[in-house]
Amino acid sequence: MKRNEKFAFVLILLFFVGAVSAQNLSWEKVAPGVWKTTIGVPEKFDLLKAAGGSPSVPGLTSMNQPGFPFKKGAIMGRTEDQKIYLRFPLQKDEQVFGFGLNFKSIFQRGRVFELHMDHYGGKDNGRSHAPVPFYVSDQGYGVFVNVARYIKVWCGTAVRMDSPDFPEVRDRNTDKKWSSRPYSDAIEMSVQATGLEVFVFEGPTALDAVRRFNLFNGGGCLPPRWGLGFTQRVQKLYNADDVKAEVKAFDEHQFPLDFIGLEPGWQSKAYPCSFEWDKGRFPDPAGFIKEMKDQGIRLNLWTNPYVSPESPVYDALKPYYGSHTVWLGTIPDVNIPEAANLLGEQLKKSQVDLGVSGYKIDEVDGYDHYLWPDVATFPSGISGEQMRQTFGVLMQKLTADIYHQCNERTYGLVRASNGGASNLPYVIYNDYYSHPDFITALCNSGFSGVLWTPEARSSKTAEEWLRRIQSVCFSPMAMINAWASGTKPWSFPEVEKDVKAMADLRMRLLPYFYSEFAKYHFEGTPPFRSMYLEPGFSIHPEEVEGKVDLNENPYAEAVRKEIKDQYMAGEYMLIAPMFAGEINRKVVLPQGKWFDFYTGQYVGDGEVITVEPGLSRIPVFVKDGAIIPMMKAQLRAPKAGERIDLEIRHYGTKDGTYRLYDDDGETFNYEKGDYSWRELKIERSSSGKIKTTISKADKGKPDNIGKVSWVEMTTR
Amino acid sequence: MKRNEKFAFVLILLFFVGAVSAQNLSWEKVAPGVWKTTIGVPEKFDLLKAAGGSPSVPGLTSMNQPGFPFKKGAIMGRTEDQKIYLRFPLQKDEQVFGFGLNFKSIFQRGRVFELHMDHYGGKDNGRSHAPVPFYVSDQGYGVFVNVARYIKVWCGTAVRMDSPDFPEVRDRNTDKKWSSRPYSDAIEMSVQATGLEVFVFEGPTALDAVRRFNLFNGGGCLPPRWGLGFTQRVQKLYNADDVKAEVKAFDEHQFPLDFIGLEPGWQSKAYPCSFEWDKGRFPDPAGFIKEMKDQGIRLNLWTNPYVSPESPVYDALKPYYGSHTVWLGTIPDVNIPEAANLLGEQLKKSQVDLGVSGYKIDEVDGYDHYLWPDVATFPSGISGEQMRQTFGVLMQKLTADIYHQCNERTYGLVRASNGGASNLPYVIYNDYYSHPDFITALCNSGFSGVLWTPEARSSKTAEEWLRRIQSVCFSPMAMINAWASGTKPWSFPEVEKDVKAMADLRMRLLPYFYSEFAKYHFEGTPPFRSMYLEPGFSIHPEEVEGKVDLNENPYAEAVRKEIKDQYMAGEYMLIAPMFAGEINRKVVLPQGKWFDFYTGQYVGDGEVITVEPGLSRIPVFVKDGAIIPMMKAQLRAPKAGERIDLEIRHYGTKDGTYRLYDDDGETFNYEKGDYSWRELKIERSSSGKIKTTISKADKGKPDNIGKVSWVEMTTR
Repeated sequence: MKRNEKFAFVLILLFFVGAVSAQNLSWEKVAPGVWKTTIGVPEKFDLLKAAGGSPSVPGLTSMNQPGFPFKKGAIMGRTEDQKIYLRFPLQKDEQVFGFGLNFKSIFQRGRVFELHMDHYGGKDNGRSHAPVPFYVSDQGYGVFVNVARYIKVWCGTAVRMDSPDFPEVRDRNTDKKWSSRPYSDAIEMSVQATGLEVFVFEGPTALDAVRRFNLFNGGGCLPPRWGLGFTQRVQKLYNADDVKAEVKAFDEHQFPLDFIGLEPGWQSKAYPCSFEWDKGRFPDPAGFIKEMKDQGIRLNLWTNPYVSPESPVYDALKPYYGSHTVWLGTIPDVNIPEAANLLGEQLKKSQVDLGVSGYKIDEVDGYDHYLWPDVATFPSGISGEQMRQTFGVLMQKLTADIYHQCNERTYGLVRASNGGASNLPYVIYNDYYSHPDFITALCNSGFSGVLWTPEARSSKTAEEWLRRIQSVCFSPMAMINAWASGTKPWSFPEVEKDVKAMADLRMRLLPYFYSEFAKYHFEGTPPFRSMYLEPGFSIHPEEVEGKVDLNENPYAEAVRKEIKDQYMAGEYMLIAPMFAGEINRKVVLPQGKWFDFYTGQYVGDGEVITVEPGLSRIPVFVKDGAIIPMMKAQLRAPKAGERIDLEIRHYGTKDGTYRLYDDDGETFNYEKGDYSWRELKIERSSSGKIKTTISKADKGKPDNIGKVSWVEMTTR
Repeated sequence: MKRNEKFAFVLILLFFVGAVSAQNLSWEKVAPGVWKTTIGVPEKFDLLKAAGGSPSVPGLTSMNQPGFPFKKGAIMGRTEDQKIYLRFPLQKDEQVFGFGLNFKSIFQRGRVFELHMDHYGGKDNGRSHAPVPFYVSDQGYGVFVNVARYIKVWCGTAVRMDSPDFPEVRDRNTDKKWSSRPYSDAIEMSVQATGLEVFVFEGPTALDAVRRFNLFNGGGCLPPRWGLGFTQRVQKLYNADDVKAEVKAFDEHQFPLDFIGLEPGWQSKAYPCSFEWDKGRFPDPAGFIKEMKDQGIRLNLWTNPYVSPESPVYDALKPYYGSHTVWLGTIPDVNIPEAANLLGEQLKKSQVDLGVSGYKIDEVDGYDHYLWPDVATFPSGISGEQMRQTFGVLMQKLTADIYHQCNERTYGLVRASNGGASNLPYVIYNDYYSHPDFITALCNSGFSGVLWTPEARSSKTAEEWLRRIQSVCFSPMAMINAWASGTKPWSFPEVEKDVKAMADLRMRLLPYFYSEFAKYHFEGTPPFRSMYLEPGFSIHPEEVEGKVDLNENPYAEAVRKEIKDQYMAGEYMLIAPMFAGEINRKVVLPQGKWFDFYTGQYVGDGEVITVEPGLSRIPVFVKDGAIIPMMKAQLRAPKAGERIDLEIRHYGTKDGTYRLYDDDGETFNYEKGDYSWRELKIERSSSGKIKTTISKADKGKPDNIGKVSWVEMTTR
């Protein structure tokens, strides 16, 4: 009866709280530029508690605070039909972004979502590997709903009778101005929960709101340097010798490789999982791991969290299992610290302590028919629904904590994340495989505080393989995921050289990418993000006349030409991937002068250009004044303390600065201040003479920079 | 506070009711072979209340009662996480059907649904024009959940830890017997409601359970005779003269036509709707309707229920509008009798009293971004969700009631229906247009107490047009829906003759189809239904090895070869439609001898045959002993009292009987007993001599049969 008693208490409380009108919502400033209100009786478990982050106060404090972005009473919240009803205003020309890891759309106004953890099923309907209840407006604010429940969102679709700006009613029979989408002045949401918290993030820009959201969740994750190098995932029943041969083949082909992913076959039972090495395929795990590490190769291990009766932790975990199973594996309720510790200890003892560098956490997202149903119960008292929304985050936290305790950074893969988890060192992947949609996901990941890898898995043609590898090289994790196909970087000989050149470029850009990730951590700025977070990028797109399609578009609605096939990588680079079959493509440049990354040539300013880069290049453009710190191509990312020489490219005609980040690249010592920011600077005198400077690392702080050479890319 | 008070009362009650364990569910027999239990505190509004039917006691009483089909305590129900949790057992080799109007699948075991009113979006996921919470098992029972809420269903997907028959755990790495779909022993459901009713329908066969479900809801609808003739829908801005010309063209082409559908242009404003004639396009509605009726042509009028401020009922309906609008039209809460009366009176006065014969009720299903959000409120106190689940049913009831009051039958179209509405004279249509999927929907409609029209709308080729028309002729409504395309039956001259021949065949079959609909009404037997409701049809299909598709089928699950492209039409006919591009097709015959409908030749017995019917014929087969009453081809269905001559075909070698139904075909006088059943009989003496008899109508009962001729189709 215990759960029922609690339930009744909450409900009786709800009754006395009653319908909270708009005027009654009281907003409390909980961090610089971050506001919170409470509606109903918030649940004991929520997204932020699952993620377990804490705000990055220095980061938040350093930002301007333009003030609460809404008029008083503009946001409504109340209990209605046993659910929480929320309403947020929308201006006529406002656009909103976010609502998690969408794959096809950037503009979210006019859409309906049910934010629901799931694999991506081909439609941007809220079912996503990261159904993050956070949106950001081009008017310069963000909104986050902190509740571990499915959330229905009507994002500017409905017109209420009491709307103060009710549109003109027209006759569809005769009036050509009739619209199937009259102006809706609100985002409305419905959540079946006893209560929840809403957070509002100040701007003044959309990017600032995103930064604040990330900083509030502890700042973005800072991967180890090796995490930004290359990774290959090998076929699922590979044994130790197969893996060694794979590494050897990479080295022979001079293809960069920092970590290898092992699939289920490393485990004695999977799945359900034993979380133990298979002694047949890996007779000496410690020796094998050491041998790999001696060659500079780390290991990432696939697992899902469903426990085999033959796992050594099965019995100890017995008090903590949920009511249902997944592929007959029991579900440990890792929301209970004892259960998290038991599972964590098994992973630590059997793998982390032996030198394994990270995990790929699979099957924590969906499909509905494989996972537990919502009616499942868990011993911590959270519901099947709450577990569904957060299991990926809980498993990220559990594993990240092991590494944090060991003062060793990890960088893994996960199929499920959610709001609040920006600081957890995991990159989302899935089984979907549309290259263009992978790029749109990369754009969207930056709105939601998650990372996404547009992995190369296999390809029908050499061209496709190269085009996919090119995108992979400009993404948070440079992954070839060949566990099913067995594809190697050199599997298509006609493009092997080009693939290798791209991989080398990725390695050369590590100083840049690593610094950009540091900015994700310390400043909240997503390293990979949509153009719509870039200053000077227009949000008002061309509309293309719609065609009647009774099923898909019955009202022949105009198609909004969102820019979803190009994105920003770090402060200065604009990436415009090519897809197989394309000879040329359009690139929309924000205002300001832009230059070709490879040649330094001026390409345009706030305009749409068409580029024809040839097969070997992915179009990359940089801003005026850009400074791109590069190193020489290596097969492995620099180790802790490894000195590297810098080649610093600079572009355009403006003065420029760049902040280069440095630390040991492997531990959490940066949390104790053990890092340095170096300022790279280009100044031009009136005579056009260029002065380049690089500041010194503060005394006692990391300084791993060797020789520095400056390359002027733009000739005048 | 009123709604809150009610809410709290219910919740406090819920607390005291507490978790209802399986043992505590008490089952009450509420009608012969129909059992009910209650879980939680049922809501004041539910599906059965929306539909407003009452059980057909004579029909139910006439059936055998094999007893409650479950073991005591086998069904669980309780409150969990503020939702109602239901669990029903599943045997290992059991198959279940139903869960509403699915378009792609017949076997529902292994699927996950959220039963949610919506347009069909291309996946059988519960979002449907008829998300009926009713399923039927091949073990011979049916289950209905009476609640006007979205219902989540895990249909044999999840394995609980406490399952008494927990499957063997295997290692996927090495054990080829590993299955991604281990045996799940339950259908689990979750409904966010304070409570609900569950009904169990006895068999002993699945068809009996379906019949009982239909009879419990008042029996299936009995359309007027003219409703089974042909209908064409005309372009949306056609005026009275255009419509007259259309009728003339049909008559000139000697193509049957019983009713014409007018699209939004008949209204002065649409949409939102005025529910008034447009005086420009229809200056004299009464005269126009009379002129049509004098030619034997009836009118069906498109409408949606969203009210224009310029409608004459707009002001009177003001107290009854919901909080939101649809395309700026207000939503009348027709769950309030006063609102239903006001809208009904407008329809009656302006249209029904003038002779309009029915409605096409549009846009009561979805899309989410056009309809009201769940957060909408309605003055009767039902929620946006409850209104969404039932608005189509409420509108069917509202309009059907007008006709019932006038003692005139109607037969209309609707985009949304739900459980309990079998007795409402509406056929579901939509904007989707896959011919094969339309046939699967026809199969599924019979499981859920709804009717579905696989309308012909337009076609790319003459072949496709003919193939679609062939299916249309063996469906509940023989509709050409050309409001958008303007296609006429004769638009493809190369198949005009074949199209006309098919249409004539439909008209010749009216005595058969009309009798089959009478059986739907009086006995609950769906006139169009899946093969799996047919005795002697195997439910154990061939399995075809699955291919790995990381996104669609990651575990390479075998494909179940459901039979979903052939169906039963009435007692004796098996229809196996051809789709464009096909030269031949396989047909799975149930056990027993089967004969070709056209030739009478024996084709097989409980086997798979391949047929190559040519372009002009749709494969139709009949059972041994079949008797098919036919009439001559007419352009209009027989009027009340019109005497028709019968040509009675009989097939095969067995004796046979057929019950032929007769009444006036237009009024509800049959409700007062004003109908007759005639027995047609074939008996063979030992010498092989055939004796044919037709019983007389009871004295004073309808008798519209003229000359009778018997045709022996199968020669020996």
